[in-house]
Amino acid sequence: MSLVQSFQWRYAVKKYDTSKKVTPEVLADIFESVRLAPSSFGLQPYKFLLIQDQIKLEEIGRAANGQAQITTGSHVLVVAAETNVNEKTVADYIDKAVVARQTLRNNLEQREQFINGMLSKMNVQQRITWAENQAYIAVGVFVAAAAEAGVDASPIGGFNNAAVDEILGLGQKNLTSVLLFVLGYRSSEDEFAKIPKVRKSTVEIFQVV
Amino acid sequence: MSLVQSFQWRYAVKKYDTSKKVTPEVLADIFESVRLAPSSFGLQPYKFLLIQDQIKLEEIGRAANGQAQITTGSHVLVVAAETNVNEKTVADYIDKAVVARQTLRNNLEQREQFINGMLSKMNVQQRITWAENQAYIAVGVFVAAAAEAGVDASPIGGFNNAAVDEILGLGQKNLTSVLLFVLGYRSSEDEFAKIPKVRKSTVEIFQVV
Repeated sequence: MSLVQSFQWRYAVKKYDTSKKVTPEVLADIFESVRLAPSSFGLQPYKFLLIQDQIKLEEIGRAANGQAQITTGSHVLVVAAETNVNEKTVADYIDKAVVARQTLRNNLEQREQFINGMLSKMNVQQRITWAENQAYIAVGVFVAAAAEAGVDASPIGGFNNAAVDEILGLGQKNLTSVLLFVLGYRSSEDEFAKIPKVRKSTVEIFQVV
Repeated sequence: MSLVQSFQWRYAVKKYDTSKKVTPEVLADIFESVRLAPSSFGLQPYKFLLIQDQIKLEEIGRAANGQAQITTGSHVLVVAAETNVNEKTVADYIDKAVVARQTLRNNLEQREQFINGMLSKMNVQQRITWAENQAYIAVGVFVAAAAEAGVDASPIGGFNNAAVDEILGLGQKNLTSVLLFVLGYRSSEDEFAKIPKVRKSTVEIFQVV
């Protein structure tokens, strides 16, 4: 299938087939596209937390008003943004660039100063919003990669963020939850599969100026 | 190419080949994936403005510190988020759903009230941030769709948003600029093509909880 066909095929599954699990190989392939997603300055200020602890999973389900995707999906992830992007974040990135590009740190100091200069113009809340924005780009890539792999995916925004942060102890890890993301295979009983997609027309979204 | 291979192939092009243009057919295919991208409640609170007015394009280039992608790319878009998401936005969506789902408006009134209830919990700035977040998901899909089509793409965040809003009169249209997005084909002279990608490892981004 082309990506357009994959997007026509996909929909926000509400009820997954609990007997079908995404294999580690397919999961790794989807994750690899997300890992390669672009981000501002390449800093990737986010994590995708794969929830395998059953008790935490149930607690997260309750924080999301018991939405059925969470209890029926094959894999549940919490997308979290970093809340403390700072000079160390940039230094870690530059360290990686030194290795990847087989160069001396000296050659990347100008770049490091440039990124730190851009970050210094943002206050704490603006940096969190900026980190969240980057996470949303990765979520877009995640949706595309899952659809291409024939895996159903439901990004879920309607949940109690503070409760999920508390359940996972995200505050201590300088993270905050952005979205829940469920992967799996649609149940044949999911009535939402039959409902036509509602989308704006091309001319409503794309306009020539 | 698989999507992973497409993501390995892509990079943030700095200099495009000015002799190569993305064809209308390829462009339409990329746009179609973006049009089908998911968004919170399905509201798609964003526009992608394709800048064909040469004077405005030059002004936008200056607002982005003369970054070479803008003057060498095949197509330049301004991604803009809606700043006035309100009950009319929801009513327009419900109108579309009535047609797509061939149902009576009555049957969707509960859904309409639910969405309005969620929106009513957000103040004006929170709604704008929410709309921007949805635009970033569409940007992630855009990056994936372009890569799959073998088209280079550069999302550009480092620009004067207020200046771009002013150049395009976005305030009057209840929009605000989020990102610039350039499409085209890499120049053989782009030195950035040879620089290895810097990315976090899988275990840094994906963590089991």
